[in-house]
Amino acid sequence: MEYKLPKGFKMAGVSAGIKKHVGKDLGLIYSEVCANAAGVFTKNIVQAAPVKISKERIKSGKCQAIIVNSGNANCCTGEEGLKDAASMTSFAASELNIPENLVVVGSTGVIGEKLPIQKVLSAVPNLVASLSNSGVLDFTHAIMTTDKFHKIAITEGEFTVTGIAKGAGMIRPDMATMLCFVCTDADIEPTLLDGMLHIATDRSFNRISVDGDTSTNDTIIVMANGLSGVKILNDNKEVFQKSLDYVLLNLAKLVVKDGEGATKLVEIIVKGAKTKKDARIVADTIAHSSLVKTALFGQDANWGRILAAVGRSGIPINPDVVHVFFDDIMMVKNSMACKDAESKVNEVLKKSEFTITIDLNMGIEFDSVITCDLTLEYVRINADYRS
Amino acid sequence: MEYKLPKGFKMAGVSAGIKKHVGKDLGLIYSEVCANAAGVFTKNIVQAAPVKISKERIKSGKCQAIIVNSGNANCCTGEEGLKDAASMTSFAASELNIPENLVVVGSTGVIGEKLPIQKVLSAVPNLVASLSNSGVLDFTHAIMTTDKFHKIAITEGEFTVTGIAKGAGMIRPDMATMLCFVCTDADIEPTLLDGMLHIATDRSFNRISVDGDTSTNDTIIVMANGLSGVKILNDNKEVFQKSLDYVLLNLAKLVVKDGEGATKLVEIIVKGAKTKKDARIVADTIAHSSLVKTALFGQDANWGRILAAVGRSGIPINPDVVHVFFDDIMMVKNSMACKDAESKVNEVLKKSEFTITIDLNMGIEFDSVITCDLTLEYVRINADYRS
Repeated sequence: MEYKLPKGFKMAGVSAGIKKHVGKDLGLIYSEVCANAAGVFTKNIVQAAPVKISKERIKSGKCQAIIVNSGNANCCTGEEGLKDAASMTSFAASELNIPENLVVVGSTGVIGEKLPIQKVLSAVPNLVASLSNSGVLDFTHAIMTTDKFHKIAITEGEFTVTGIAKGAGMIRPDMATMLCFVCTDADIEPTLLDGMLHIATDRSFNRISVDGDTSTNDTIIVMANGLSGVKILNDNKEVFQKSLDYVLLNLAKLVVKDGEGATKLVEIIVKGAKTKKDARIVADTIAHSSLVKTALFGQDANWGRILAAVGRSGIPINPDVVHVFFDDIMMVKNSMACKDAESKVNEVLKKSEFTITIDLNMGIEFDSVITCDLTLEYVRINADYRS
Repeated sequence: MEYKLPKGFKMAGVSAGIKKHVGKDLGLIYSEVCANAAGVFTKNIVQAAPVKISKERIKSGKCQAIIVNSGNANCCTGEEGLKDAASMTSFAASELNIPENLVVVGSTGVIGEKLPIQKVLSAVPNLVASLSNSGVLDFTHAIMTTDKFHKIAITEGEFTVTGIAKGAGMIRPDMATMLCFVCTDADIEPTLLDGMLHIATDRSFNRISVDGDTSTNDTIIVMANGLSGVKILNDNKEVFQKSLDYVLLNLAKLVVKDGEGATKLVEIIVKGAKTKKDARIVADTIAHSSLVKTALFGQDANWGRILAAVGRSGIPINPDVVHVFFDDIMMVKNSMACKDAESKVNEVLKKSEFTITIDLNMGIEFDSVITCDLTLEYVRINADYRS
């Protein structure tokens, strides 16, 4: 399958020998003309070197290339790590013949090990030579770590939006071990782009949860090079917001679906809350509960664990009036089991995607979070990750 | 092995057929004379029927018997559940020939299923007839659910303190799916006893974490019948506090050790914090991190995950000056790996008990939390729990 890139964008992915196993591990995104750009970065106080550099550079609102490696997060690597991240951008800039400050950088993989920078730099010429407008898959593979499948979402129309994500673990609201790069040929001023990116992120990546951990390397960058000629302004911004929302939400769902070892994608909807914030806190508590997540894996209608999570969320609820639905099957009414519901709920639990709705019966506000199950495979992957 | 009970206490445990599998599931503690008593209960807003009843009764500061079932939590069972819990106490009271308000009740097991109350009540006469001063083990077995071993701690001297706990999952600071009953023949006024119980709980059960969930049924009750003749007053209270601390801390450690599927008991010590509260929040974040806990299971010195947890704890830290020790081996200095430390740390990781110390280098306050690893067995147990 061919994945479409917006006008003027090229991508590449090569093997630089960073990963312990064979495979592509160095990727590049390039726009023929300097693009407007915006970024969202991890809120973790411990931040990887590439995050520090990219965060600073993206403030200019301009970007022409993104270089990304997998297999090493270049995090907790001190001054040397910062130098290594900077030299990735300067080598790429010089090969591409563009200013260094138009290049940003991303890394993903093990924390605390020095980046094998010579291997990276030696591979840059080949990387630049490989750039092509059919390079989406190569780039995508180059940024994968424990991902089981690649994650690409595209909208086409007057302008094209192509998004690529990497991520399978350490995903929680407020970002993730997650890299996401979005290219578009729409024409948008950096400030407007930045605002729309934050809205789309809140509607997508900040609503997913795999294991409650938050990474040091999370990065979302969007580049808009304007080559479609379609100008996005305040009065027509919804058309672009819609495309960006679509791309980010689909990528976010793919990330949860690929949650390390996950077999189920479950949307936790909390309604009947007094405030939207209350709804979100309750949804997050359920979405992060190890007991709820193992019950989902076991296809067990153990709604008691859901109520226990609701009860410890810290939100003042009335414990006697809570309803719980699996898809549209009411399992719990006023905090007690509905007779004969369990066999129908068991059918829902067999599905790979469904919703769990909790009605607190205290107000009219609602919010939702997307989560996955906690499986044997999750433990296997994460107990073995560095070996 | 014979476990000693304080003077005037008897215990029993029988099979009432509540559990799906064969085994004891109904237990009783009885003091020949009315005892002073104090209790600590779950902070979960969703509370089981027995918690509601016992919490109210223990306010009188008096208690003579405790009846406890396993196999069913009698939680989210509405008015009927409350009636069932009350009839457990009234049946026991009438067989024991004591006032009903001197009997408290505990339950543990599946949430949301009606208690098979007829089975319970039919077993009460046999339960009362089985009371004996060598009944500790029978009682202990009767309150176990997924526990792999029984949990008993005793101090002897001028007075005896015998504590019994049940619990293996859903354990986090601020209580647990955990039942704990302590009997002593020391003579202590209820108010003093209550204060000392709260201190001992803060030093033990509120510092342990298995999976971050909190149960609806958590209960700690202490009964002091005074039959040793040793009067505990304000000026000699430390001798009793010490015994109570010892018993509760040892029971709490046994609970973590038996954390569902756990293979390692790890104390997370955070020092160099600006406030004790900061230290505790950072320690809790590390202790609850699924990625840290799977790395412990994998015996992997993945300190990057520890730093990532420190960074997302919400406490303003300086990300460049953190030290990390495994036992006394310094693995991380100023947020970077110490050369050659890893092989020594790998030896520590093979142990079944060790400490991880995080020095934030920002102040002089410290706190600690006890956690365990997240294992394949944890997922197996919790995916299968109701089947």
